[in-house]
Amino acid sequence: MNYEHLFSRDAGAFRPSAIRAFAKYMNDPNVISFAGGSPNPETFPAEEIGAIAERVVRERRQVALQYGPTRGLPRLCSFIAQKFGSSPEEVIVTTGSQQALDLVAHTLLDPGDTVLVELPTYIGGTSSFHARSAQLAGVEQDDDGIVPESLAAVAARTRPKLLYVIPNFQNPSGRLMTQERRARVLEIARAFDFIVIEDDPYGELVYVENADTTPVKSRDEDGRVIYLGSFSKVLAPGLRCGFIVAPPAIASRLEIAKQAADLCSGMLDQSIVDEFCASGALRPQIDKVRAFYRGKRATLLSSLAEHFTGRATWTDAAGGLFTFVTLAPEVDTAANVERAVANGVAYIPGAPFFVDGSGKNTMRLTFAKETDERMRVGVAKLASVFA
Amino acid sequence: MNYEHLFSRDAGAFRPSAIRAFAKYMNDPNVISFAGGSPNPETFPAEEIGAIAERVVRERRQVALQYGPTRGLPRLCSFIAQKFGSSPEEVIVTTGSQQALDLVAHTLLDPGDTVLVELPTYIGGTSSFHARSAQLAGVEQDDDGIVPESLAAVAARTRPKLLYVIPNFQNPSGRLMTQERRARVLEIARAFDFIVIEDDPYGELVYVENADTTPVKSRDEDGRVIYLGSFSKVLAPGLRCGFIVAPPAIASRLEIAKQAADLCSGMLDQSIVDEFCASGALRPQIDKVRAFYRGKRATLLSSLAEHFTGRATWTDAAGGLFTFVTLAPEVDTAANVERAVANGVAYIPGAPFFVDGSGKNTMRLTFAKETDERMRVGVAKLASVFA
Repeated sequence: MNYEHLFSRDAGAFRPSAIRAFAKYMNDPNVISFAGGSPNPETFPAEEIGAIAERVVRERRQVALQYGPTRGLPRLCSFIAQKFGSSPEEVIVTTGSQQALDLVAHTLLDPGDTVLVELPTYIGGTSSFHARSAQLAGVEQDDDGIVPESLAAVAARTRPKLLYVIPNFQNPSGRLMTQERRARVLEIARAFDFIVIEDDPYGELVYVENADTTPVKSRDEDGRVIYLGSFSKVLAPGLRCGFIVAPPAIASRLEIAKQAADLCSGMLDQSIVDEFCASGALRPQIDKVRAFYRGKRATLLSSLAEHFTGRATWTDAAGGLFTFVTLAPEVDTAANVERAVANGVAYIPGAPFFVDGSGKNTMRLTFAKETDERMRVGVAKLASVFA
Repeated sequence: MNYEHLFSRDAGAFRPSAIRAFAKYMNDPNVISFAGGSPNPETFPAEEIGAIAERVVRERRQVALQYGPTRGLPRLCSFIAQKFGSSPEEVIVTTGSQQALDLVAHTLLDPGDTVLVELPTYIGGTSSFHARSAQLAGVEQDDDGIVPESLAAVAARTRPKLLYVIPNFQNPSGRLMTQERRARVLEIARAFDFIVIEDDPYGELVYVENADTTPVKSRDEDGRVIYLGSFSKVLAPGLRCGFIVAPPAIASRLEIAKQAADLCSGMLDQSIVDEFCASGALRPQIDKVRAFYRGKRATLLSSLAEHFTGRATWTDAAGGLFTFVTLAPEVDTAANVERAVANGVAYIPGAPFFVDGSGKNTMRLTFAKETDERMRVGVAKLASVFA
């Protein structure tokens, strides 16, 4: 039977992630991969997670294995609220940060509404907005983050409902938005009356001194910022535990949407994360994760300096998992993927991250996956591909 | 700031579950509760789950704690496919069965589309359809399941896109749809060209001989049935592991919707369920669950016979977790909830399960929660409330 007439209009707007097409290159051991986007499993506190899992299931099956509150395990909500100086009624635990994006999109967007996004931006964000048939408009970014003049101009033209930003070590750009820019973003949001969705999965992954990751949310005076957080990069993404901090009137709508979306997030996952937070083990774990990536970042940046100085620019990656490389204007990174893989190295072409069709000469590199030695070899291979 | 102008039209259609208002009565130890809808934690194989969790995290952190495929852990998909004589490309693992409903609704429904539902039906189903601004139309049910003449008449009038049915031990009615009725449902679906959503969370909870639970899906010749299953009632709902079996053309759309919804379901949860299935431990576990509830069901039914014969009718509950009681036409069960609680007994009024506003003289009782002794006392209390 033919189904086309049965699909919703939203289904017509669904866009499968463009970078998934490159997934097949990511797990070939003969290919040195800068192409992934996942955290390194060596950072997962597996032993602790296993022990906690065994214990919470044994001691509290009626919580850890039962349906739970839609908003999340109360003690975990309180922990999150406390961290942000919020009240628990502003917090909703989500099935990973991706669900947070989906709930926000479902609750706030009608078909045709405009969402502003950075150039470049995270594809999981644009997927959620496309899935509600929203229009996306790109805003320029430089090394200080989103460009206020561009934001104001695009906002004036498009009258957006939402701005989606990743101020801390953005995926894909690796950039950190300055505090001055954050203040300007909020001013412009007030002037044009739009909501700011602040997505912050990487804020705890800091590798330099003096990186100011204070959230836009902390400047929010009129309840205009919805903050999205995640335990995926500091604990483990397989646990699917993210969260939203939103003004109570929005949080209660998000809660109803979540009830229809999955009733509650995984209770074993939440119980594990909750124990991790309550026991004080989160802070040392974050320190371990930082230490793990710090050296890898240094290796990738120094290799780039060795091979690409004068031929490309790349972002500082003071935190997070990525640096973003811009090559000469005539280079097309997507056109070179297969040749690169044939030469034993993989990256993610940058164009899919730009909603305006630009970025053909860019690529995203992660330092999360490979050893220092393989990264050095890999960057040399990249240099020969783009010689 | 005022947010009303910012919410989507769907958000205006969100309906919080009407039965959640009764949740406060469910956990008071002084109240004998027939009001819950959750499985009994004593049925959860906590020791096995804890041991498996500890082991998969230790041995396979790069799978159990990492992001995974949107469609689900491949071996688990194959297990599910095999059980239904389907191919793995028809299977999607979901974050509980509720997410399956949400993905189906998002992929197939536009605002104003009509969904047919049974009278009464599961409120989590109607929530997902309301959340897409769908119209709901009720179809009559009797002790053999949905009434074909009513289905055909309502379909002719409303030209629905979907029919939502729970053929096995329905929530809330506890009824088992006969195989003859299932065949008729499919004939009518073909005649009026609508899709059948077959929700089957209770199919494995069988307490009598000769209950034929063969899914509607097994009769599906033209790819018209989307089957939703769950491990929540046979293992544990806190693991959030459900699944969809759908025609490949629909499954691939559902996969894209799921990618935007939460990237993937919990990988620890999936790894636990997968190990449980692969080790052959699922079948004996199902037998244990059946044995646990079989006696409880008998106690509730015999207590009802003792106190309500001639004053009410109730469904057979040959499986599942519920019996559904119909009192004299003038009784309003919702109006008596507080008096019942004051007398130490709780139930769920039936009206919220009926999309046409009927059912005021009905109530849902679960035998999942209380001991035999407390159930006997509770039914006597109920009898005095409705004397």
